[in-house]
Amino acid sequence: MRTLKLTLAYDGTAYAGWQLQPGKVTLQGALEETLLQITGQPTRVAASGRTDAGVHALAQVISFQTASELSLGVLQGALNAELPRDMAALALSEAPANFHARRDAVRKRYRYVIYNHQWADVFRRHYSWHYYRRNLDAPAMDRAAKALLGTHDFRSFESRSPQRATTVRTIYDIFAARGNGPDTHLVTIEVEADGFLYNMVRSITGTLVEVGRGEKAESWPAEVVLAGDRRAAGMKVPPQGLFLVNVQYEE
Amino acid sequence: MRTLKLTLAYDGTAYAGWQLQPGKVTLQGALEETLLQITGQPTRVAASGRTDAGVHALAQVISFQTASELSLGVLQGALNAELPRDMAALALSEAPANFHARRDAVRKRYRYVIYNHQWADVFRRHYSWHYYRRNLDAPAMDRAAKALLGTHDFRSFESRSPQRATTVRTIYDIFAARGNGPDTHLVTIEVEADGFLYNMVRSITGTLVEVGRGEKAESWPAEVVLAGDRRAAGMKVPPQGLFLVNVQYEE
Repeated sequence: MRTLKLTLAYDGTAYAGWQLQPGKVTLQGALEETLLQITGQPTRVAASGRTDAGVHALAQVISFQTASELSLGVLQGALNAELPRDMAALALSEAPANFHARRDAVRKRYRYVIYNHQWADVFRRHYSWHYYRRNLDAPAMDRAAKALLGTHDFRSFESRSPQRATTVRTIYDIFAARGNGPDTHLVTIEVEADGFLYNMVRSITGTLVEVGRGEKAESWPAEVVLAGDRRAAGMKVPPQGLFLVNVQYEE
Repeated sequence: MRTLKLTLAYDGTAYAGWQLQPGKVTLQGALEETLLQITGQPTRVAASGRTDAGVHALAQVISFQTASELSLGVLQGALNAELPRDMAALALSEAPANFHARRDAVRKRYRYVIYNHQWADVFRRHYSWHYYRRNLDAPAMDRAAKALLGTHDFRSFESRSPQRATTVRTIYDIFAARGNGPDTHLVTIEVEADGFLYNMVRSITGTLVEVGRGEKAESWPAEVVLAGDRRAAGMKVPPQGLFLVNVQYEE
């Protein structure tokens, strides 16, 4: 058996999320079916993390084992030929036998895109959250976001009651910024961390939006962290603005 | 009756083009149905020009007459609430009684987007032509395109045998350019002219691609114009890369 590492882009619009669910069209299901079709072998794949229905990936990382002897180039070409048009195999490489896309991930980066204008951008309707009640103060959001840098207990930003051993995570980078020129109506938030709680980026974004629309002070997100209570945070913003940007592994 | 000027953005993916066709879902049909629903009056609309199935508009211009007394703000808001999510009313204004979006247009600008990379960009699959057989030489395409500037008989770039009084048009601006940074795989062609023949931008693009992939010399597009024969030109590239960018009118 070989262990392979696959980098996958997908438009999550048409899927009930990453994870296999009976009777639903999922990204994992589509990939596993395609691998079965190409290699003739049932194949179980592991992603760096699940993405919810409507969430996208610029570069999700997948690991799987296969007895197929197809060369990497042939297998990647076959994947791109046979996968649905909203999924693309961007890279494929051999990995150590025990490589696992989720367990071995050391950092992940997510992006959340807000389209902040009165009228919708029809071309971004599946790739952003159309928010127009206020013009967002992106510099204020950015300053407020910096309080989340570093190691904290982020349970206030977890949608469900904690199911993990710990809700402590380390955020290495976070910013909010308004685009320039043709992108002036876009407000983008990016977060890079050693791991994410369920819906963490969408809850952080909803919290920063409260600052951006002038409802809360710039010091408020820091207070939300300290509260340690989901009810203290802002709303969970919708899924279609969220992109998994990349996943990092130890060399 | 009032005459109104509407600026409309649309994602053409789901439509059989602009123009009404029996039994097909068209952009004109969707707009006229929405206006009927809002005003209670059957309304016939005129666009600056038809767009084909799969072609998009950043700012199509529409004229129509209505007896509705709704304010511009209310009518625009109602359009954005009631139109399908892939259409947006970007602007609405009163126009002179005899204003007609097609007859009065003095310049139009189109953009064609090529995604020039081995693997598809899943987020651009409906908004670009994925061309990957060669890395395109965009500067060569740009130099070749300059021969099309000015007033020429463009019948070589018309898909059907000429049905108009004249196939002479004036191109005021044309360029081809590769994007920077994250857009490095995009090759964009823009053309601004006083009018366009049927499929003219798609045929010009196909001709420039022959230069960009090294199959034809930079002097070739000028020869295609002089030939005055559709068979002399390059292929007509697919519709989903084409955008109507804007339409200009006399002040």
